[in-house]
This record gives sequence, C-alpha cells and structure tokens, in this order.
Amino acid sequence: MLQLSLIGIGTGNPKHLTREAMEAICAQDLILIPNKGAGKDDLAGLRQAICADVLAGAASAPKIVEFDLPVRDPATPDYRQRVEDWHDAIAEVWQATLAAHLPKGGQAGFLVWGDPSLYDSTMRIAERLGRRMEMQMRVIPGITSVQALTAAHGVPLNRIGAPVQITTGRQLRDAGWPAGCDTLVIMLDGECSFQSVDRPAQVMIHWSAYAGMENEINIAGRLSDVQDQILSVRARARRDHGWIMDIYMLERLR
Amino acid sequence: MLQLSLIGIGTGNPKHLTREAMEAICAQDLILIPNKGAGKDDLAGLRQAICADVLAGAASAPKIVEFDLPVRDPATPDYRQRVEDWHDAIAEVWQATLAAHLPKGGQAGFLVWGDPSLYDSTMRIAERLGRRMEMQMRVIPGITSVQALTAAHGVPLNRIGAPVQITTGRQLRDAGWPAGCDTLVIMLDGECSFQSVDRPAQVMIHWSAYAGMENEINIAGRLSDVQDQILSVRARARRDHGWIMDIYMLERLR
Ligand SMILES: C[S@@+](CC[C@H](N)C(=O)[O-])C[C@H]1O[C@@H](n2cnc3c(N)ncnc32)[C@H](O)[C@@H]1O
Ligand SMILES: C[S@@+](CC[C@H](N)C(=O)[O-])C[C@H]1O[C@@H](n2cnc3c(N)ncnc32)[C@H](O)[C@@H]1O
Repeated sequence: MLQLSLIGIGTGNPKHLTREAMEAICAQDLILIPNKGAGKDDLAGLRQAICADVLAGAASAPKIVEFDLPVRDPATPDYRQRVEDWHDAIAEVWQATLAAHLPKGGQAGFLVWGDPSLYDSTMRIAERLGRRMEMQMRVIPGITSVQALTAAHGVPLNRIGAPVQITTGRQLRDAGWPAGCDTLVIMLDGECSFQSVDRPAQVMIHWSAYAGMENEINIAGRLSDVQDQILSVRARARRDHGWIMDIYMLERLR
Repeated sequence: MLQLSLIGIGTGNPKHLTREAMEAICAQDLILIPNKGAGKDDLAGLRQAICADVLAGAASAPKIVEFDLPVRDPATPDYRQRVEDWHDAIAEVWQATLAAHLPKGGQAGFLVWGDPSLYDSTMRIAERLGRRMEMQMRVIPGITSVQALTAAHGVPLNRIGAPVQITTGRQLRDAGWPAGCDTLVIMLDGECSFQSVDRPAQVMIHWSAYAGMENEINIAGRLSDVQDQILSVRARARRDHGWIMDIYMLERLR
C-alpha cells in the first residue's frame, strides 16, 4: 500500500521547515522532485538542497528521484480543460515513477512549496492518483508566502476583526477590488496587476519578492508613490536571477 | 537596546515549530508568557511545555517569565476603544516586566499562537511598546490554524485560480456571505455563525477543533447535513476540555 505525504516546506528559507516536515522527509522511502526543465525557476535545486540538509546525519535516507514534468498542451483551447489534462498527465508520470522505484508500495513524499493547500496543484494530482491506485494521503502544513510576506514587513495581515481576501493577479484585473474587503493579498501575478487599482494614493502596498529567501526584496508605501519603483526593481531582479516569485498585500486606506 | 522577537509557534502541535522558531527560542535572553488566569484556555501551560521541550539540551537557556494579562474594561462602551485601551495596558505591563527582568536591554521573545500576523494582537502591542521605548521588532512566521485546518482535512484552500476570504464569525453574521468569493475561512467564532448561512444544502463545510493538537476533531460534509452534529460535538468538547478553538472552511457549491 502506498502512503503519499505532501510535505509543506515553506517558501525557500530552509529554516521555514517544521519539525513535522523534517521528520517526514527522513521517514520516506522515496522523495519525488519535479523538474521543470532548463530556463525555469531553480526550485528543483532548492528542494535537493533542503533534502540533503535535512538528511545529513539521519539514520536512514530516502531515495531521491527527479522526474520531468509533462508540458501543458497549448493546443487545448479551454484553460480549465488544459489544466485538467495536464494534471492527468502528471498523475500518470507519478504512477510510472512510483511503479519503477517503489513497486511494493511504501512511503513516498513530495516537497511542496509553501503550504500544500494554497494555490498548488499537488493535492489535486494526488486525488487523481488516488483514482488510479490504492493509496493514503497525508498533508503536512508549511509556512506560506503570505506568512513570509507579513513577517518580512513586520505587519499584521488583517485589521482588527476585519476580513482579508487572498486572490490572484488575474482576479484583481478581471473582477476588480472585491466589495466589503479592504485588505487583499495578491499571488500568482506575473503582470504587476496592482497597476489596475483605482485611486492608488488611497492604497498601501507591501510587496516582497523571494520572501524568506536570501535575496528577499521588500518595498512598502502608498501605491501611487512606489509602483514605478516596484516595476523597475522587479524587472531587474527577474533579469538578474532568471526567475521571480513575488507577492503583495494591498490595503485600502479609509 | 531591546530586540523583540514575535515567534510564531503553530497551533498547538509542538511539531509545527519551524527551525527558525526553535533557534529563536534558544537565542532569547527572556521569554514572556501571558497568563490569562484560571478558567481560560491552557495556552500558557502549552507555551511552557514547548519552551521546555525546545530548550532541553540547548547550550544556553532564556529566563522564562509569566505575566498576568490585564483585563478589558467592560465599562468602556466602544468596542474599538476598549481594545485600544487594553492594548495600551498590556504594553505597559510588558514595559514593566522588561524593566524588571532585562534592565540593560537584550533579546526578549513572545511565543505567538499560529502566525503573528493573523488575528493576533501581539504585533499591535509591540508597536505601542515601540512608541514608549527604543526597540527593534522581528517576526518569525508560524503555521496558522488555516493551514492546520486544510492539512487535517487534506483539502485545498482555494479552487483553481479562485479567491479565498479569511474572516470572522461576526463578519459572517453581520455582513453575510461576501460577494464574488465562493470559499471562506471563518475564525474567532464563538457562536457557530455557520447557522446564519443561506441555503446550507449548497454549502460544504470542513470544521476542525483543536486543529493540529492531540484532541483534534474534524467534521466535514454538506452544511445542512452536519451542522447539528458540529453544534453538539462542539458543545461537548468545550465542556470536557474547559475551552475550545475551532475554525472552518465554507465552500459554496455551483
Ligand atoms: C503556485 S503558488 C504556490 C504558493 C505556495 N503553495 C504558498 O503556500 O505560498 C506560487 C505563488 O506564490 C507566491 N510565492 C511563493 N513563494 C514566494 C516567495 N518566496 N516570495 C514571494 N512570493 C512567493 C507568488 O505569488 C507565486 O506566484
Ligand atoms: C486570536 S486568533 C489567533 C490565530 C492564530 N494567530 C493563527 O495563526 O491561527 C484565534 C482563532 O484562531 C483559530 N485557531 C487557532 N488555533 C486553532 C486550533 N488549534 N484549532 C482550531 N482553530 C484554531 C480559532 O478560530 C480561534 O478563534
């Protein structure tokens, strides 16, 4: 029988690892690391480094296997269908990799960036795998980039008793600022969608790139004052590192 | 000079502690633990146990001091003012306790439940302290009860590309279900406010009490099917333990 552990590892700072995550890494028979191919972010390397670090001095060590992620089929016109097909294709690769390296079952783990529940497809792919073979799934929570952002800036996420919406750059652009909620966290935003916000002088932004990592960058201020700075700093960092991950909080002032 | 560390410790499971949090606990000169008084939750005891556990075998150990939390003045009619006054009173107690135990400055730490940025007043009190004396503040992120909830149930927080609102029981009762957002997480709800939700047969709930702790309880299903069960299980658990902390996710089905 296969036991699958989705292990939240935090957002790139090896010190974000919880005790639970470290113990789980050591307890696996196999750890699967997705490889996105050259020119993408260097997260496979970071996951390898985290494993090496945690396993240094451990009594027993899991086998660590990288596998190539299939690519999304750009020919499928519908976005949702394209994602579903892609998840199916990944579940298939998982199944083949597990069959090759863990034919009799056992413990297999995935290191998931941040927390496995937040804007991550690993749990959805695991569900698909569960339809193909018998398995149990366990989720180990991790520090999210939302926590890394607020810790970097030393600011509360919410105002006292008030709501917070976590959403995407696309939602902010397409649906606008949600009614009844003065604090937003924007993730998955390749397009600096804060530029679409009305009355930027009435909005505070706390922006972080590579939050929690060595090359963390933080910028905060009134959106009208700092948005150009964020655009240029972001473009430069992306060029220098070859990839970027950024997240920000927007607060409407009253 | 005083360096204040707000150390997120997760939601009661000692294994939620990150490496960063464990190192920070060991590095403090003083750790301050608020004491809410008899009849409240047993979190002071739990914080003491976490410290003892982390510090067992550590080279140097901080002094651990419990202090009594002042009580809110029920005579102040305005809620916001009552909270502001209370935070001022706590900052004053902090200052006195720090003066007594760390007169020459140094490293003082607070163990904050979950993550310091989420529905917690420690950061706001630290800001007040910063207006009274020179200090630096550092925030160490922790696993939140939102992550503990989704991990306990093994479910994603968001639908693909969709927003999530984190809010309170009071907001759900007073402002209703927010427009444009099908997934909510409800915290700080002493009144089972899910009872106020319209068309409960069209809503899924994932409910956890003591998430991540030994006595964790999880109930999930259509709100119409499980709400009575949650009410009775919650009342019993609260009676048995003397306190309860619960959190839930609501998802509108389409
Ligand atoms: C696919 S989602 C994964 C989120 C992750 N599961 C979590 O819990 O944070 C990727 C998005 O998370 C955010 N993100 C993740 N790590 C980050 C970091 N170290 N710094 C800034 N943003 C980060 C960015 O908004 C990025 O577009
Ligand atoms: C004052 S807030 C603190 C939240 C905390 N800072 C966090 O990051 O989760 C307290 C609320 O958090 C939720 N909570 C905290 N710990 C919990 C646990 N172990 N199980 C269920 N809910 C919890 C409950 O909704 C509770 O009313």
